[in-house]
Amino acid sequence: MTTNDRPIVVSMGDPAGIGPEVIARAWDARAAHALPPFVVVGDPRAIAAAWRGPVARVASPAEAVAAFPSALPVLAIEAGGAIVPGAPDADGARMALDALGLAVGLARSAAARALVTGPVAKAQLYAIGFTQPGQTEFVADRCGIARENAVMMLAGPGLRVVPLTVHVPLADVPRLLTTELIVARARVTARALRRDFGIAAPRLAIAGLNPHAGENGALGREEIDVIAPAVAQLLDEGLDVVGPLAADTMFHARARAGYDAALCAYHDQALVPLKALHFDEGVNMTLGLPIVRTSPDHGTAFALAGRGEAEAGPTIAAIAMAHAAATARETG
Amino acid sequence: MTTNDRPIVVSMGDPAGIGPEVIARAWDARAAHALPPFVVVGDPRAIAAAWRGPVARVASPAEAVAAFPSALPVLAIEAGGAIVPGAPDADGARMALDALGLAVGLARSAAARALVTGPVAKAQLYAIGFTQPGQTEFVADRCGIARENAVMMLAGPGLRVVPLTVHVPLADVPRLLTTELIVARARVTARALRRDFGIAAPRLAIAGLNPHAGENGALGREEIDVIAPAVAQLLDEGLDVVGPLAADTMFHARARAGYDAALCAYHDQALVPLKALHFDEGVNMTLGLPIVRTSPDHGTAFALAGRGEAEAGPTIAAIAMAHAAATARETG
Repeated sequence: MTTNDRPIVVSMGDPAGIGPEVIARAWDARAAHALPPFVVVGDPRAIAAAWRGPVARVASPAEAVAAFPSALPVLAIEAGGAIVPGAPDADGARMALDALGLAVGLARSAAARALVTGPVAKAQLYAIGFTQPGQTEFVADRCGIARENAVMMLAGPGLRVVPLTVHVPLADVPRLLTTELIVARARVTARALRRDFGIAAPRLAIAGLNPHAGENGALGREEIDVIAPAVAQLLDEGLDVVGPLAADTMFHARARAGYDAALCAYHDQALVPLKALHFDEGVNMTLGLPIVRTSPDHGTAFALAGRGEAEAGPTIAAIAMAHAAATARETG
Repeated sequence: MTTNDRPIVVSMGDPAGIGPEVIARAWDARAAHALPPFVVVGDPRAIAAAWRGPVARVASPAEAVAAFPSALPVLAIEAGGAIVPGAPDADGARMALDALGLAVGLARSAAARALVTGPVAKAQLYAIGFTQPGQTEFVADRCGIARENAVMMLAGPGLRVVPLTVHVPLADVPRLLTTELIVARARVTARALRRDFGIAAPRLAIAGLNPHAGENGALGREEIDVIAPAVAQLLDEGLDVVGPLAADTMFHARARAGYDAALCAYHDQALVPLKALHFDEGVNMTLGLPIVRTSPDHGTAFALAGRGEAEAGPTIAAIAMAHAAATARETG
C-alpha cells in the first residue's frame, strides 16, 4: 500500500470534551495546513453536536481516503447514551476507550499510517475500570512495548523536550533521576529523531537539575554524580550529546538552534519552556513504539466543549507531525 | 532637584568583563531608546579598551547631565594596574567594588536618580575579601535593609518573575519554601509594583511547586500545606493573588496577561520562562530597597569581552527600567 491508500487514524477522545470539535476544525483547515487524509474513530453524534460541517460515515480506512476531500470521515463507534458537550459520563468514557482500542489496532495493522489520540479524562476512564495510568501506557501495552521504554516527547515548531521524570512530586525528582534512566531515554530519543524526523546525527542537550547546573557542585551534586556520567556514557556510544547545561540559558532561540531535543530532569523544566513558546502548537509524541503516535498537548477542557472556542492548533500540529513521522518511516 | 538635574548612576562592574562595552553601547543607543542621562562609575581605560566613542570625565552628577548629549560621562575610579579585556585581576575587582560603593552612595544621597549595576565576577570579589554573597546583598546592606527583605525580580517586556528560593540545590527547595517566605515576598512585590511600576492594584500569580500544581495532592502536598495557606493569608490582607497555578500553563501570552508578576518556587521555574521569552532584554531588579536598583541579567562574560560582540540589550533595558521606576517614584 502507498501513502495515498491509507489515512492517519484519529481517536476521538472523550465525546463530551473538546476532542470532537478540534478534530473537525482540523479537517476544515486541511488545505491550509496540507494535512493528509485522516479518519476519526468515535461517535458521529459528538461531532454533530459541536460542528456543522459534512461528515461521511465510512466502513474502512480506504473509504475514508476517498471521502476525505469532501467530508470528515468517521468510523462510527456509538456511545450508549446521549452525548452532551461538557457533561462527561460512563457511556462516553467507554466509547472513548473502544475508539482508542480500534484506532491502535488500525495503526498496528498498517491499515492506518499513524495514530493521533484525542483527549480523554483519566478520572472518567478510571471510573469504568481502566487500569493503565493513561493512554500512552495503553498504547505501549497494545504494541507490546514495556511502558518504561515508551518515552514522552513534547514538541513545538522550535523546541522538542523529553521530561526524564514526569508525574511525580518535585521532592522525588532528585532520587528518581538516575544515570541509567538518562542513558535509556537518550538512546530512545536519538533513535526516534533519526527514524521519525529524518535527522541523521541527532544532537541531544541534557539539562542540569540544579540552578546553573549546580555550579561545579556548589548548588547540588546531581550534575557531577548522575548526569555527567550519563553524558560520558552516551558520548562513548557515539551519540552527539552535551550537558549538563544550565536550564535557564538553554531555551532561547540561539541556544535551541544547537540541539534537536532537550532532555529535562522534571516535568516543569520541560513543559514550562515548551508551553511558554508554543502553547497553541504543542504536540505530545510517544517515542519508542512500532507505530507513530502523537496527540495534542491538552486535555478534554469540558468547560470549553461545544462552544466553538477551543483551539484546533494543537490537533492540526499533531496530525501534521504524525504525517511527517509516518512519511519519514515510509521513505526512510 | 528635578529629573533633569540628576543622572542615573551605572557602576561599571568588572573592568575586564563586558560591562564597560555594553554600557558604552547603551550610550550609543540613547536616542533610539529614549534613555535619560546616565553616568558611569569606573575606570575610563576599560571603556577605551572596548569602544571608540567620546568619553567625558566628569566630577559630579550635574556635570554628567550636561555632558551626556555629546559624550559618555564617567566618574573616574582607576584600577591599580593595566586593564585587559578578558583578563580579570585583583586590581580590577577592587576597582569594581569601589565603583559599586560610590554608585550606591550617589543613589542613596539622591544625587543620582537610580542605580544600575554592571556585572561583577563573584570569584574575583571573594578573592579580594568581599564577604557578601553578591552585589544585591551589598547594596541592601548599604541601604540598611536586611538581605531577606531585598527581593530579586527578573523582568522582560512581557513577564516579571520573583523566584522565592534562588541559589540553592533543587532538593532543598521543598524544605525552604514556607508560607511565611511566600507571604513576605508577595508583600514586597506588591508594594514595589505599586511604587515602582505605578500599578495601583497589582495582580500576583503564585506557581505551584509540583507538576500540575500537585493535582489536589496526588503529585505532592506543598500546594495544599504551604502555598494555599499563603494565598489565603494574602487575600485576607486585600492583595490580588491567584494560585497555586500549574507552572507549565502560566507563561504563555494569554496567561501572562492575567498577572503583573509571577512568584515562582525556585530558580529555574522563574528563570527558564523569563530567558526563553526575553533572553536579550532580561533585567534584574531588587525590590524592597529605598533606592531603585536594576542590573542587566547576565554575567561578566570574560570570554566575549573586548570583541564588540556582547549584547547591549539587557543593559539598555536595565537603564530604561530604572528610569521608569525612578520616574514612578518621583511622580507617585
